[in-house]
Amino acid sequence: MVQNDQELDLAGGVVPSYFSDTKDQLSFPMYKTLEEAIIEQKPDVIVDFTIPEVVKQNAEIAIRMGVRLIIGTTGLTQEEIAHLDRLAKEYNIGGLIAPNFAIGAVLMMKFASMASKYISHVEIIELHHDQKLDAPSGTAIKTAELIAQERKEIKQGNTDEKESIEGARGGEFHGFRIHSVRLPGLVAHQEVIFGDQGQTLTIRHDSINRESFMPGVNLAIKKIQSISGIIYGLEHILD
Amino acid sequence: MVQNDQELDLAGGVVPSYFSDTKDQLSFPMYKTLEEAIIEQKPDVIVDFTIPEVVKQNAEIAIRMGVRLIIGTTGLTQEEIAHLDRLAKEYNIGGLIAPNFAIGAVLMMKFASMASKYISHVEIIELHHDQKLDAPSGTAIKTAELIAQERKEIKQGNTDEKESIEGARGGEFHGFRIHSVRLPGLVAHQEVIFGDQGQTLTIRHDSINRESFMPGVNLAIKKIQSISGIIYGLEHILD
Amino acid sequence: MVQNDQELDLAGGVVPSYFSDTKDQLSFPMYKTLEEAIIEQKPDVIVDFTIPEVVKQNAEIAIRMGVRLIIGTTGLTQEEIAHLDRLAKEYNIGGLIAPNFAIGAVLMMKFASMASKYISHVEIIELHHDQKLDAPSGTAIKTAELIAQERKEIKQGNTDEKESIEGARGGEFHGFRIHSVRLPGLVAHQEVIFGDQGQTLTIRHDSINRESFMPGVNLAIKKIQSISGIIYGLEHILD
Amino acid sequence: MVQNDQELDLAGGVVPSYFSDTKDQLSFPMYKTLEEAIIEQKPDVIVDFTIPEVVKQNAEIAIRMGVRLIIGTTGLTQEEIAHLDRLAKEYNIGGLIAPNFAIGAVLMMKFASMASKYISHVEIIELHHDQKLDAPSGTAIKTAELIAQERKEIKQGNTDEKESIEGARGGEFHGFRIHSVRLPGLVAHQEVIFGDQGQTLTIRHDSINRESFMPGVNLAIKKIQSISGIIYGLEHILD
Repeated sequence: MVQNDQELDLAGGVVPSYFSDTKDQLSFPMYKTLEEAIIEQKPDVIVDFTIPEVVKQNAEIAIRMGVRLIIGTTGLTQEEIAHLDRLAKEYNIGGLIAPNFAIGAVLMMKFASMASKYISHVEIIELHHDQKLDAPSGTAIKTAELIAQERKEIKQGNTDEKESIEGARGGEFHGFRIHSVRLPGLVAHQEVIFGDQGQTLTIRHDSINRESFMPGVNLAIKKIQSISGIIYGLEHILD
Repeated sequence: MVQNDQELDLAGGVVPSYFSDTKDQLSFPMYKTLEEAIIEQKPDVIVDFTIPEVVKQNAEIAIRMGVRLIIGTTGLTQEEIAHLDRLAKEYNIGGLIAPNFAIGAVLMMKFASMASKYISHVEIIELHHDQKLDAPSGTAIKTAELIAQERKEIKQGNTDEKESIEGARGGEFHGFRIHSVRLPGLVAHQEVIFGDQGQTLTIRHDSINRESFMPGVNLAIKKIQSISGIIYGLEHILD
Repeated sequence: MVQNDQELDLAGGVVPSYFSDTKDQLSFPMYKTLEEAIIEQKPDVIVDFTIPEVVKQNAEIAIRMGVRLIIGTTGLTQEEIAHLDRLAKEYNIGGLIAPNFAIGAVLMMKFASMASKYISHVEIIELHHDQKLDAPSGTAIKTAELIAQERKEIKQGNTDEKESIEGARGGEFHGFRIHSVRLPGLVAHQEVIFGDQGQTLTIRHDSINRESFMPGVNLAIKKIQSISGIIYGLEHILD
Repeated sequence: MVQNDQELDLAGGVVPSYFSDTKDQLSFPMYKTLEEAIIEQKPDVIVDFTIPEVVKQNAEIAIRMGVRLIIGTTGLTQEEIAHLDRLAKEYNIGGLIAPNFAIGAVLMMKFASMASKYISHVEIIELHHDQKLDAPSGTAIKTAELIAQERKEIKQGNTDEKESIEGARGGEFHGFRIHSVRLPGLVAHQEVIFGDQGQTLTIRHDSINRESFMPGVNLAIKKIQSISGIIYGLEHILD
């Protein structure tokens, strides 16, 4: 992604277990530690998609060494994020931490939140591959929370409605319903349907692979240049 | 519908409470009883969309007077249908009784039944206006029964899947799931989604008003000419 | 709509040809002229869904008599709207003129405009009943214009793409495509699909009848209370 | 696929350039030529997804050596297929040649063909990744041909309809329209929409990767056991 964007330069990579081998023909330098990479390359931004065990330490190193940071790793607590925010402001450094970098998913949530101010009747259908363990998906729950904050709370549906098969009407969340579909051949999809007199408005996101995070990371790298402190959530850099 | 089809002639109508008024400018004759209409007009077919209380009697009158019949009225028991079938064969008369004349809905069920022979993973999402009382809809249950007859019975989804909101995974029917969405702005819609490796097949029917029955009635009128005995279900005259 | 909302009172109606008849059992007063209705009822707002020939005059009467106005009638020129705006500011009166009061459609356009800042690849599919004369629909063209204002202009698709059937790739508008589907059984539907690496974002509006304008008129009546001058377009009162 | 199916055994593979290496830990034998593999393993069926240059020769070898064959390789002419059919009947061997093994796609085409007998108004929307060269897709054209064979030929849409942007109404094929959407984030999708009074019926296939061919190959392997001669097209073994 970085190498395909003329506005960006790939300064280098960090892999702790990196073992230089003559067979590798990389077009950029590799380092075993983040400090080493920062000292040698003086990058503008680091992008961290690592693991919960090291992300906090990486973030502190970047901030203290004056490098902006984009973090897609999950596992940071609210306290840790608040701490990194204070540290970043102290060093006048900007950073973005986000649980989801798929721009389409983030826009879906933003639009769902906006629409729920004007249309109170809504249901969410999320569809994932059949090996997924949890229902509803994390994205569906987050979307539902955003909707619940804006929507006039009502209990939807006919007050006398009856389920002849239990669960048919889906899971209830603050008066509206969430439905989870699981099938092979699906990847990660979500549809938010708003209904009003004589009309429906549907916002749908379909994700078919991990590449869907790339445009969001690209946008974050560019927007972070003019920010001080830590922003949580890609939605806050979409106007 | 009849008057818009050059292959058909509208012989007349029957309304028990009919009161002839000079203001009426009907282009076809009206009768107060079915017998009267049949005697005067000698129609090829009668179409009965009346009420449960009179449909059986109407059917017997038609058969005994040698007129083919199309019935969209619900309420006939299996015994009554069997009786009408014997009577119709005795008089060498054809008839069709169907709970649903929406050709699209009937094809949706037929295709869902056929697809379930080849793809075992399936879920049904039905969507109706928010005043509907029952969930799932009658069409969804009928579709599910047809699928269950053909499909290799398996329990779908991850065996360890967990619902963090009860009902999110929908209602279970023979190992697969049915989801009922209720929103203002919807009328009557159903989606059957089949999932297999790397692909999904979706069959969807959208009905926006009562007119959706007309093409099915039209087809039935034409097909019934060459049939003896009573057929139950529009699907049996779709090859 | 007004009578079903406890926050609103229906002050009266205006029908030039109104002829009072003892058979009418209206629960609100009727007038033959707008002036008469305003003098007697002193309404907060008038709602005008009349005809191009009288809308300008109605608007002037309302403003000069100190009554806010909501106008769904088409036919006003940009000059006439500018004139009404000056007049409304002079009298410190608020008014809203909108070509489309379907909140869902207006939100669809707003979201499409917003999304096109972040995702440059987009196509529009609009679907209408098969008696519609023009293609693309007015809503599709307006949506396309809004997108074109925000989107980074690129020519989409493979530069070497070939149509083996002319027109298959749809109508081109500033480098992206619009497709018009016409079928019986459809009413008025539109889908805006954005595509990015590994993901698509779809915004869809389905309208099945005229009632879809009511929630927008309701919202406009409430929001107009705190505005001075004329606003053109429902989107400007959706935050 | 073969190894995950308890009803099937993987007899071996053929790779002309195969070079046995101690590093390989294959659980099945590999051969450099088809003859060698057949002589040693005496398989029930061979599956050929090779290249146009060798497929005809492979097919002849299999038939003459008494082995059933499933061919997914394109490039055989109608004459070559007819020749293979005669040869297969002579040796009392069954074979299936198909351009598309995605069961979902084949069912979509079959259902579209069936529906077009009853509903004459139809449009096709096919959606593919934006690097695709041809529009409409091969699958869309094949679907359109199947529809045209069954459908009552009519020119759809308002006879006075006007395109304000040329191509908006799509490509015309025997009186109905085909629309080709090209966006990044899409893979291979097709929607066939039938419209009738008050209703629409939609049949949609979504394919996200090559694995979608596997269930079709699996079905073919099983069905071919009871066939003599060459069948062209997976649809002919779906009842």
